[in-house]
Formats: sequence, structure tokens, C-alpha cells
Amino acid sequence: MGNFCDIMRNFFCGTKNTNVRISLPAVCFVWQIAMIVLFGVFIRYDEEADTHWVKHKKDHNITSDIENDFYFRYPSFQDVHVMIFVGFGFLMTFLKRYSFGAVGFNFLIAAFGLQWALLMQGWFHSLDPATGKIYIGVESLINADFCCAGSLIAYGAILGKVSPVQLLVVTLFGVTLFAVEEYIILSLLHCRDAGGSMVIHAFGGYYGLAISWVLYRPNLHQSKRLNGSVYHSDVFAMIGTLFLWMFWPSFNSAITDHGDGQHRAAINTYLALASSVLTTVAISSMSQKTGKLDMVHIQNATLAGGVAMGTAAEFMITPYGSLIVGFCCGIISTFGYLFITPFLEKYLKLQDTCGIHNLHALPGMLGGFIGAIVAAAATEEVYGKEGLINTFDFEGDFANRSVLTQGGFQAAGCCVAIAFGIVGGAAVGEFKNSEHVCHVLQVPEDEEAIPPVLEYNNHMIHKHQEISESNFSVEQS
Amino acid sequence: MGNFCDIMRNFFCGTKNTNVRISLPAVCFVWQIAMIVLFGVFIRYDEEADTHWVKHKKDHNITSDIENDFYFRYPSFQDVHVMIFVGFGFLMTFLKRYSFGAVGFNFLIAAFGLQWALLMQGWFHSLDPATGKIYIGVESLINADFCCAGSLIAYGAILGKVSPVQLLVVTLFGVTLFAVEEYIILSLLHCRDAGGSMVIHAFGGYYGLAISWVLYRPNLHQSKRLNGSVYHSDVFAMIGTLFLWMFWPSFNSAITDHGDGQHRAAINTYLALASSVLTTVAISSMSQKTGKLDMVHIQNATLAGGVAMGTAAEFMITPYGSLIVGFCCGIISTFGYLFITPFLEKYLKLQDTCGIHNLHALPGMLGGFIGAIVAAAATEEVYGKEGLINTFDFEGDFANRSVLTQGGFQAAGCCVAIAFGIVGGAAVGEFKNSEHVCHVLQVPEDEEAIPPVLEYNNHMIHKHQEISESNFSVEQS
Amino acid sequence: MGNFCDIMRNFFCGTKNTNVRISLPAVCFVWQIAMIVLFGVFIRYDEEADTHWVKHKKDHNITSDIENDFYFRYPSFQDVHVMIFVGFGFLMTFLKRYSFGAVGFNFLIAAFGLQWALLMQGWFHSLDPATGKIYIGVESLINADFCCAGSLIAYGAILGKVSPVQLLVVTLFGVTLFAVEEYIILSLLHCRDAGGSMVIHAFGGYYGLAISWVLYRPNLHQSKRLNGSVYHSDVFAMIGTLFLWMFWPSFNSAITDHGDGQHRAAINTYLALASSVLTTVAISSMSQKTGKLDMVHIQNATLAGGVAMGTAAEFMITPYGSLIVGFCCGIISTFGYLFITPFLEKYLKLQDTCGIHNLHALPGMLGGFIGAIVAAAATEEVYGKEGLINTFDFEGDFANRSVLTQGGFQAAGCCVAIAFGIVGGAAVGEFKNSEHVCHVLQVPEDEEAIPPVLEYNNHMIHKHQEISESNFSVEQS
Repeated sequence: MGNFCDIMRNFFCGTKNTNVRISLPAVCFVWQIAMIVLFGVFIRYDEEADTHWVKHKKDHNITSDIENDFYFRYPSFQDVHVMIFVGFGFLMTFLKRYSFGAVGFNFLIAAFGLQWALLMQGWFHSLDPATGKIYIGVESLINADFCCAGSLIAYGAILGKVSPVQLLVVTLFGVTLFAVEEYIILSLLHCRDAGGSMVIHAFGGYYGLAISWVLYRPNLHQSKRLNGSVYHSDVFAMIGTLFLWMFWPSFNSAITDHGDGQHRAAINTYLALASSVLTTVAISSMSQKTGKLDMVHIQNATLAGGVAMGTAAEFMITPYGSLIVGFCCGIISTFGYLFITPFLEKYLKLQDTCGIHNLHALPGMLGGFIGAIVAAAATEEVYGKEGLINTFDFEGDFANRSVLTQGGFQAAGCCVAIAFGIVGGAAVGEFKNSEHVCHVLQVPEDEEAIPPVLEYNNHMIHKHQEISESNFSVEQS
Repeated sequence: MGNFCDIMRNFFCGTKNTNVRISLPAVCFVWQIAMIVLFGVFIRYDEEADTHWVKHKKDHNITSDIENDFYFRYPSFQDVHVMIFVGFGFLMTFLKRYSFGAVGFNFLIAAFGLQWALLMQGWFHSLDPATGKIYIGVESLINADFCCAGSLIAYGAILGKVSPVQLLVVTLFGVTLFAVEEYIILSLLHCRDAGGSMVIHAFGGYYGLAISWVLYRPNLHQSKRLNGSVYHSDVFAMIGTLFLWMFWPSFNSAITDHGDGQHRAAINTYLALASSVLTTVAISSMSQKTGKLDMVHIQNATLAGGVAMGTAAEFMITPYGSLIVGFCCGIISTFGYLFITPFLEKYLKLQDTCGIHNLHALPGMLGGFIGAIVAAAATEEVYGKEGLINTFDFEGDFANRSVLTQGGFQAAGCCVAIAFGIVGGAAVGEFKNSEHVCHVLQVPEDEEAIPPVLEYNNHMIHKHQEISESNFSVEQS
Repeated sequence: MGNFCDIMRNFFCGTKNTNVRISLPAVCFVWQIAMIVLFGVFIRYDEEADTHWVKHKKDHNITSDIENDFYFRYPSFQDVHVMIFVGFGFLMTFLKRYSFGAVGFNFLIAAFGLQWALLMQGWFHSLDPATGKIYIGVESLINADFCCAGSLIAYGAILGKVSPVQLLVVTLFGVTLFAVEEYIILSLLHCRDAGGSMVIHAFGGYYGLAISWVLYRPNLHQSKRLNGSVYHSDVFAMIGTLFLWMFWPSFNSAITDHGDGQHRAAINTYLALASSVLTTVAISSMSQKTGKLDMVHIQNATLAGGVAMGTAAEFMITPYGSLIVGFCCGIISTFGYLFITPFLEKYLKLQDTCGIHNLHALPGMLGGFIGAIVAAAATEEVYGKEGLINTFDFEGDFANRSVLTQGGFQAAGCCVAIAFGIVGGAAVGEFKNSEHVCHVLQVPEDEEAIPPVLEYNNHMIHKHQEISESNFSVEQS
């Protein structure tokens, strides 16, 4: 067994890059152990996931197991889950040097963030004061996935610029800020935001942009040739785009009201997305001398309609209203990629690797205000008396709120989300720039120090790099 | 801001390829605006997606939100959605020069077509004469996706031969013809065709073949080396194949009757597909000197069982009957790829890029006739009295129809679908060959004029092409 | 038509590699015909998929179609189906020479196995003694997919080492053994194993390892350079990983009890998987000198938590208990890839291509024992009186079984699964080594005789190979 000793020595006594070898595992272990302890103290199954469901059914005269919330929400949950892990992950594979990093770190961030999200959202939204416990069910899982989405969006702005440990820090603060702003917007302001235009997209977008702005690296543009996409990395990215596009109706309808709420949200989102595709193609084709389409637009701007419907999808925005929203957002988002992103990079020194400003921040903000307008324009004639109460939850403390007031609060909620994103992101970015352990976590300054990209075992990579100096295109394979 | 002026000038004053730059955006914008207007006039939510659902529930004594049609059909809808966008899109990525074109234009066509489909199908099937409105719900979305499937199948025959604008024209007429033939077959002839063997596959297949036949380009075979597949474009195509194969049970069961109808359709399709795989592998291996398998067969013919079960899946075809259908169709479809496609190209001058004749047209036609036979063979003994009425909708005007008559009408329906496909396709093809604006939309005659393939931003493509002249295989990467 | 004659002569008179050309089609045809006959004799729709459902509803006072088992299980079934075909298939695409083989043969095996599984499981579990028929519904389809999973896991150990016909033999015996051990474990020992830690993963893992051990090929290590992965084959493998990871909650909850059972199993699996990701990343980063992550670990060990929760997911293991299971299994599985796989290959002459020992065999065995412990620790206080009976099915003959006894039987069940795997696998391996038709089915001894890899039509492959001798990396494209 002398073989083992050698392996173990190798394993624990490596000297190069010790920082990453220590910091990343340390953070993961400490964090995971903390999660186990906190889950032990706080988290329990809710009554629909507990073995007492049999009794609960009898007590509440529930005639069938199908009434369990699981059957209302689980199919949508799985679609959302696919969006988070495959959709967001593969959407970012378009960088030829960073396909693994995109998918792999997306995976790590989401798995890390969703545990913290269950706790944070639990403390703010569903802590039972009597027992001091958080009771979770399938809706909590969807909310945790949503919460991670905020941080994954932010990741899109800083892709390739930060180390894995920094990513985890960004996620940790991102989830925390998310839970706070969500509490303010949904509970204190009593806004409706089922698909998270404000809470997820506007917040996540501006959070990422603010971090990226603070972490500006002037020499990054020199490495642009390493940032490019290649033919098949773009086909991989289309996998991400399509799964996001197809499942967005589930995203926006996953936690809306049972029955008509989920039904209507799915229809509206479906229509807005279809409309976005056409205007994106139109603007993209117009913008190129040859009339060809730009894959970046097709991959991203086609999704803008779904982002912008996040708030209004559950309202009676009407089918043609949904088409109009998609129509406008497809145009705005594509123009964003054509003009705003280069402008931000040139004049504001703001690098936005994946263009999240155009896909999430801007359409999210628009979605928030669209929601406010649609809410303010609601009438009892269109919604019906019960429908109005049901849709806007005008119950309890909010029973006497008018739709106009609701519209005002929706707009206020959108501003809160943006403010949280910008201030929070700037703070997190500053904290990182100045942190004590800067030699560990500092932004890498040169190519050599590029953060540990996910790589293979077999070290074939070195052969690639050798070849790639003489023959550019081989590297892509 | 002088920078902006330059950009804007560049943007609007390009001179090369102005036609495509103008025609594609113009069509997209005009179309999308027309859709918004028509949706505004005609389309409303149905009672299950409207806020009046709360009231509707009370009025109809519905005890639970789970009775909303959304919960019966939404999981199947999402599966169908994946088939349309990822399944059809990636199945066509096998061409190494056309992976983007396949996925991207598939995306455009489907997003374009589904809006028109909602209107056309609405006018024919669900226009409320009292209000003049069309009421849509989740079943309408599934039907719109189905309707697009017809045009996407046709796209498979003309892949790489037509410009995007022509594709949109093909889709526009395809959806229109689809709605008419569907109305004749399902409403006037009162056929059953839940999975659309006749309505979708036979129609779509022959529609595409007729267009391709009229648009024959003699010099296309010279560009065959550009048409080939490469290793990883074939792996991408397997993504399409597998998602189609896995979700076909959802496709055939998505709009069948609640309860046993959906259940039985899923089981039958699952079995037919499994059986197809084995016979496809058998014939494919026999056909190669080395016994190796041909990826084209595995990618396509394995799906023939699902196509052929489109009509009969909801009937009591019995599990072994499903296996027999899959058995035969796997063989027939593979033989089609081996003998019929080369024969059609050589003697009938009919180019069928993706082999849709073997995957859709032929199995679809067979599926229609299998459905007719199974319907004619139905007995009260097997179905039960209520089951027979329920399965074939022998109600109202059709209460006295016998199963034999039903079988006859099913066969007639299949002929109608084929006739619509061939005549409609030939007409659309002729229209294009002779259309006034021929210099814009004409079939490109040489490599340079190849229709705007989706391409990247970063112009790396030029480097590729340079290299590819000296080193064949690099081009594929 | 002289052309046809030539084609037909070519088709039936090829002389090279006749064995594969004959044996594979022969097996497929004979098998599929046998299936049709056996299905005709034995298999019928169950009362929920039969047209008599209308009557059944009335007779049993079922008020709504939504009570049909289809709506409880179909979304989970589709997720499981994706795991079997895309998940397992793409997880094995990491070998650059074998991407097609992995996806294509996975497809063949599963389609072949699921038909036999429906029969075998039907005979053992649901044969109606009165009619001699097996009645199938959506739960049968899920079970058939599960049953194939066992053989697909085994395929992971022998990937690239056996011919397609041998694979079918392995699957045939695998499914048969599976049905027997499942009958012993679930029916005779009355264990609970909804997600199949024991029945699927421990059995499948040891079955594959035993076959691989018997079929040891000393010269295989020389072809290691052909076994390696390349950048984008690893991205393809991530598609498999992510779909397995995302849908594992559906896998473990697909056939658990309606209501709380499915709900709780999904939550527990979700948490265990998230926890696995963090510890896998930690160990993987620690193990590399540069702190980089090893894709093999990310692709595989992140899934260990799901495997290990297969038995306990439906119990009241508590959320933090699930995190602990994931925590430990992520560590153990990653250590397995680092130390156990090389150890097995070096000292036990056991080649394990995909490392199934670390992903399936070991975590599956652990999962079985974890299930035993959790079952033994169950109390009426935690579960409730009805909940306890409901969860462990303490009814009929087993009404008086205590939780301690149940725990003991669970542990016994796990041992049975392992024993079946090892003994069965060794027997199948020996049978193959010694079989009469050895010159047909023998393990190929050299590169030339590599089993028929799925290949393309257009013979471009030869150009590749030529080039690949001078330029290593081009081959990967």
C-alpha cells in the first residue's frame, strides 16, 4: 500500500496555487456544515410533505391526494429547475475558453445559493413564531431556485473576471439582499411579482452591473480574442436559450394563484416570448450590412419578452397586451446589445460579459413598470369583484387598497429592487476590492492568473495550448 | 455623442444585400403588428384562464382548482413545446454548415407560425358566434404548437434551399392550409386524430415534398460536400432525436380525452417507439457492409413509430398492436432512407434534405390508415358502451354513426390531408417560382447567394474559411 | 430499375464483417417478434388506461378524471424518461471516440430492455391469477424505465469493451435478474425502496463491475489515448449530468405514495443533491495541485447524493438529514474517483470505464443501509400512527412488523441486491467468455476489431483518421 502514501502525500502537500486549493474547499466545507446546523435548527417539512398529511387531509376535509400542492406546482418546479441549471448554465457557454466555467460554476453557485435561500426566505416569509421553525414544501423549492436566479444573473456580468470563491461571496450577499428586498416588496409594499420582473431580474441585473462596474479591469479588452465564441460553443448556448425560452411560461406561472392565475400567466408569457422573437430577428437583420442575423441577439433578446412579463403575466393584460410587451422588449433589448453595451463599456467603464443589462436589468425594470400600469388600470368590470380581490390579494390589512394605490406601490417596489441592486452590488464590489485577504481573492491581473477554470483530468489541455499558438482555429475544437 | 451618429449612419445606410436587410425586417414588423391588431380584435382568455374562474367554479359546482384544464394538459404542453423548439430544431443540426440555420430559423418559424395558428384555428374551431371572439386556453396553445409542426416538417425538405423570407411565406400558407384541412378532417368528417398522423405528419410531409419538388435546383448536388455532417453536429442532432423520442407520448396524448384517453395514448406511443428502435437498428446494421449503424437512420427512423401512432394511440389498439405498428414502421422508414430517398432524388428530381418522406409523410399516411382500420374494428365488447361513445365522440349529429362508417371517414380524412399537402405545396412552390419580386426571393443559384445563414458577431468565420481550404476537417469545429 | 437490383445485391451479399451484420439484426428481429407474441398473450391496459375507465369511475365513486393515476405520475415519468435516455446517454459521451456509441447503444439497450422489463416485472408483481394477464399503466412504464436503469449502469463499466450483441445479452440477463431481486426485496422482504438505492443502483453497479472484472482485457490501457475526453465531449457529458441532477427528485419520487410521499421524496433528494455538489467541488479542488476542478468529479460525484437518497427519500429523514447524506456521499464518491478506481484497476484488474463503482455501487449500497437506519429509527411520535402505517405499508401480513424489524429487513434487502449483482454479473461474464459462438461475440482484441461504433454515412471519418495521425487535436472535432 506504499502507493497510497505517495498519493496522499501528493494530495496534501502540493505547493503551487495553494490559495485556491485551500480557500475554495474551506469555504465549501464551512458553508455546508453551517447549512446542516442551521437546517437542523430551523427547517422542517410543511404539512403537505409531512407524514401527518393523512391526518391533515381528514382534519381539513380534503378528499383527494391530488389536492396536495405538489401536484399543482411540481411540473412547473422542474421546468424552473431546468432553466436555472441548464438554461442559465448553457446560455453562458458561448465563450470558447469558458464553456466549462460557465456551466460548472453556474452549477456550484446555484447549489450553494439555494440552501441559503431556503433559510433566508424562510426567516423572512414563513418562520412560524410559535415553534421557531420554517416549514418547507415544493413552493419553497421554487422560491429558492428563483432566489438563486438573481445571483446567476449577476454572474453573467462578471463571467470570467472573478475567482470561484469570490463568486460564492457574491452569491452569499446576493441571496441575502434578495431575501430582504423581496420581503420589502412583497410583504411590506404588498406588491405582486410572481415571475420576478422586479424582484429577480431588475435586482439581479443591477446587482451584477454594479459589481462589474466596481471591479473594472482596464486590460480585459486585450484578452478579447480569448473571449470570442466559436461555432459550436454558440450551438451549445442555443441549448440554454431554447430551454429558457420554452420554460419561461412555467417560470412566470410557477408560484401564481392556483387555477386561473397559473393558466393566465402561462398564456401571457407564451405570447410575449413569441412576439419578442420576431422583433429581435427584425432588428438584428437590419443592423447587419449583409442582413445576416447576429447569434448574440437571437440567444438573448428573444427572451426579453419573458423577463418583462414577470410582473404582469398574472394580471388581465390581455393576449394582445402580451404581444405588445414582447414586441417592444424585443426591440429594446436588441438595441441594447447594439448600442447600450458598447456605450457602457466605452464611457462608463462597465464591462458586461453576457449583456445582462439588455436581457435582465432593462426588461426587468420595464416589466416592473408595466406591472404597475396594468395594476393601476384594473377594473372590477374586467376582473370581476372576486377576481380583483383574488388577483391582487386585497385581503386583511390591504382589503381597502384601490387599484391605483396598488399601481403606485408596484412602481415603488420596482424602484426598491433597482436601488437594492445598485447599492448592494457597489458595496459588495467595494468590499472585495478592499478586502483584507486581497492576495487570495483579488481580481486576477493577467492571463496566467485567470481563475481556476474547470478543466480536465487528462491534461490534454496543454497539447491544445501548444498548438493553439500556431493555428488559431484548432483551439476551438 | 458623435459616436452614436456614426453608428446610426452605418446602421441605416448599408448598401450590400439591402434586399434581405429590408425584406426580412419588413415582413417581421408588418406581420407582428398585424398579429397585435387581430389579437386585439379577436382573442380573449377562456373561462379557465380568466379571473372569472372563481365565479365559474361556483356556478358549475367545481370543488377544486385542480379541475382547471391547466393541470390536465400543462405538463404535456411543455413536452410538446420542447419537441417543437429543441426536438425539431436540433434534429436538423446535422448539417455542419447549417447548424445555426436549422435551430435559428426553426425558432423563427415556430414563433411566427404559432400566433397565426391561434387565429386560424380559433376562427375555424372556437369562434364564439355571440361575441365574435376566440377564447384561448392551454389546449389552444398545444394546438398552435401542433399547427407549427406541420410547417416545421415541411422546412425539413427545403432546409438550406430557401431564404428566411421565403420560409415565412411557406409557414404562412402552411398554417393556413393546416387550419382548413384540420377543420375539414376533424369537424366536417368528424375524424379522430389526436396525435396528428394525418393532420400534422402526412399533411406537413407532402406539403414540404411538393414545395421541394417545384423548387428543384439541379446544381445542389454539387454542394454536397457542404451538406455533410460531422461528428459533433451529429451528436447535436441526437439531442433533437432523443427529445422527440422521449416526449412523443406527450405529443400523442396532449389533447386526447381526460383520464383514460391520455393514459392509453401515452402507453401506446411509448411501446410503438421502443419497437421502432429495434427494427431500425436491425435494418440499419444489415444495410452496411461492415455492420455499422448509420446515424441518419438512428436519428430519424426510430421516431417513425410515434408518427404512425398519432391517430390510433387513443384507440384500444392493444399493447401488442402498438408494438406491431412500431415494428413495421421502423422497417419501412429505414428502407425509405436506403432506397426511396435516393430514388426520389434521381428519378423524380425531388430533393428531401432531412428525409421527411420517410419520417413524416409515409409513416403519417400509414398512421392515418392504421387509425381507420382500428376504428372500423372497434367493438362494444372491447370498448364498453360508454367507452365507445366517449372514444369516438359519437354524440350530437354523429350519435348514430357506426364504427365501420367512422373507419371509412378516417380513411377519407387521410386522403384529404395528403391532397391538401400535395396541391397546397405545389401551389406555394409555383407561386414562389413565379412571384413578382423574384429578384428578392428567388432561390439562390450559387454558393455566394446562399440565404443569410445565422452567423456570429465576431467575424471569426472568415478565419475559418481561409483555413478550411487547406485543411478540410478544421472547418467542422 | 436495374439500379435497384444492384442496390439489393450489395445489400444482401456483403462479405466483410458478416457476423455483426447478421447477428445484430437477427437478435433484434427475433427479440422484437418474441416481444410482440408475449405482449399479445399477457399484456393488457389496466383499468385506468382502458376505455372502461368511465364505468370504473362510476363504480368507485371517483368524481373527477384528475384522480386517474396518470395525473399523479406522468410528469415524473417524463422526467425519469429523460434521465434514462438523455441523462445516462450523454453522461457517457465524454469519450471522444465513443460519443455516438454511448448515446446510440444506450438508446438501443433501453428500448430493448423496457419491453422485457414490462413482462418480467408484470409476471412477478402484477400477474392477475384469475385472467393470467398483466395490466399496465403509467406506473408500469416508470418501473420498466427503472429496470433498464440497472442495465444502463452496468453498461457504464463495460463501455467500449463489448459488442452490441453482447450488450443486448447483458441487458437481457440484467433485466431478468433485476426483476427477481426486486421481487425478493420488495415483495418477500417487504422493503421500501422507491428510488432504488438498493434495487437499481447497488444491483446495477455490482452487476456491471462483476462483468467487467470477468472480461478484463490487459491491453486496454494501451488504448487509453483513444479513451480520453476532449473539451466539447465533456460539455456534452455535462448535459447528461445536469439532466440527471435536475430530475433526480422525480426519479426518487416517481413511484412513492401519492401526496406526502412524493412531496417529501422530492424535497429530500433536492437537498441531498445540492449538498453533494459542494463537497464534490471541495474535494476535487483539494486534490489538484493547481486547485482546478476535475470535470470527471463534477460530472459524476455531484450525483451521489441522489443515489444515496433512493431508499430514505420517502422516510422522515428530515431536511438536515438529507444534507448530511449528500455531504458524506459527495466526499466518498470523489475519493472513489481519486483512489478507489485506480486501485481497483491496478490491484484487482477491474476496469471501470465510467467509474460506476463510485457513482452507483458504493452510494447505492450506502443508501440501502441509510434507509435501514432511518427506518429502524422511525417513531410514532414523528410519523404519526397513520403516517407510520402509510409510509412503511404495515398492512396485511406485515401489520405487526416493528420498525426495528423493518430496519433489519431493509439491511438484508441491500445485501440481497449486492449478492445478486456480483453473482449474476460474474455468471453472465463467464458465460460470455466461454460461449460457443465465441468468434462472433468475443471481446475484441485489437483496435481494428473494436465493436461497431455508430458511424456516419458519408465516410468522412476516413479523412479524419488520416489527418489525425499528424495532428492530434483535429481528431476531436
